[in-house]
Amino acid sequence: MQQSYDVLFASSNKYKYQEASTILAEFGIKLGFFNCKLLEIQSDSIKKIALHKVTDAFNQCKKPVIVEDDGLFIDSLGGFPGPFSSYVFKTIGNNGILQLVNKKRTANFQSVIAYCDKKQLALFDIKVKGKISEKIHGKGWGYDPIFIPQGQKKTYALLKNKNKISHRYLALRKFSNWFVRRQ
Amino acid sequence: MQQSYDVLFASSNKYKYQEASTILAEFGIKLGFFNCKLLEIQSDSIKKIALHKVTDAFNQCKKPVIVEDDGLFIDSLGGFPGPFSSYVFKTIGNNGILQLVNKKRTANFQSVIAYCDKKQLALFDIKVKGKISEKIHGKGWGYDPIFIPQGQKKTYALLKNKNKISHRYLALRKFSNWFVRRQ
Repeated sequence: MQQSYDVLFASSNKYKYQEASTILAEFGIKLGFFNCKLLEIQSDSIKKIALHKVTDAFNQCKKPVIVEDDGLFIDSLGGFPGPFSSYVFKTIGNNGILQLVNKKRTANFQSVIAYCDKKQLALFDIKVKGKISEKIHGKGWGYDPIFIPQGQKKTYALLKNKNKISHRYLALRKFSNWFVRRQ
Repeated sequence: MQQSYDVLFASSNKYKYQEASTILAEFGIKLGFFNCKLLEIQSDSIKKIALHKVTDAFNQCKKPVIVEDDGLFIDSLGGFPGPFSSYVFKTIGNNGILQLVNKKRTANFQSVIAYCDKKQLALFDIKVKGKISEKIHGKGWGYDPIFIPQGQKKTYALLKNKNKISHRYLALRKFSNWFVRRQ
């Protein structure tokens, strides 16, 4: 049977895969879905978490594979919620974040794509600077309704072109540039 | 060389070891220190984290070993900060927690001791109910200045007998009762 993809996306989240798949198709990369449960370690660094996850994924699938990890880092809160963004969202949510952020509202969204095959391990990271809005604006996944990227007036949730400027899009594009050239 | 301890305590934190050692000595158990870095996974459950850590510890030391894990779980915040108590303390601290907690202030402190030797794996967990104080009262490690255990009027930080009623003490005592009888 012919292999119908260029690289696998390891995750238990099909929506994350679909989003990544649409983005990578733009760059001519066919993404397969490797539906799996990966070991997530506790670390202050999303790079370390992603490296650990992609190594675990490669050990399971034995094929070229990527994983994605991201987090919202709020400057006045020492980088909180950072690598624990998903857990923090599930518990205190956007209302909790708004209660914690006072005058200094700068923050950044980080995304890391980690790649692994039998020969190499590579990381592609992007940081999108911005700020936390005063209120929830718009509906959207996770922190999208409270994050305003630099140079914009609206939150991710209200920006029509979000998927062309987001940290996740930019990290996938960075990976694509490298991946396409190396082949 | 004669073995000078009954069980090892795996941690990279010498102070945690010393506290546990003093408590276990009360029950006639000699605790050795296994200074190591253990893999901590991300999970909503401190039991799962402790089981993973103790298995990792046993694979490294190959001797009877325990690890301790704990967390503060605030009811109105969906259990936050829970398994991420240590990271949350380092970032938003007690002031952050006080900003998040409003009317409903009930919370609990949980501690888990996980034990592993070549034949078995066992867990000993304790939940101490209480509430979050309105302000910071006293000086002390972590969340001690904002947690008032049920039946008390002061925070852990101000209670002179804290080490005789704390979640960590009670979990170690629960482990001791089992450990002493099984020998």
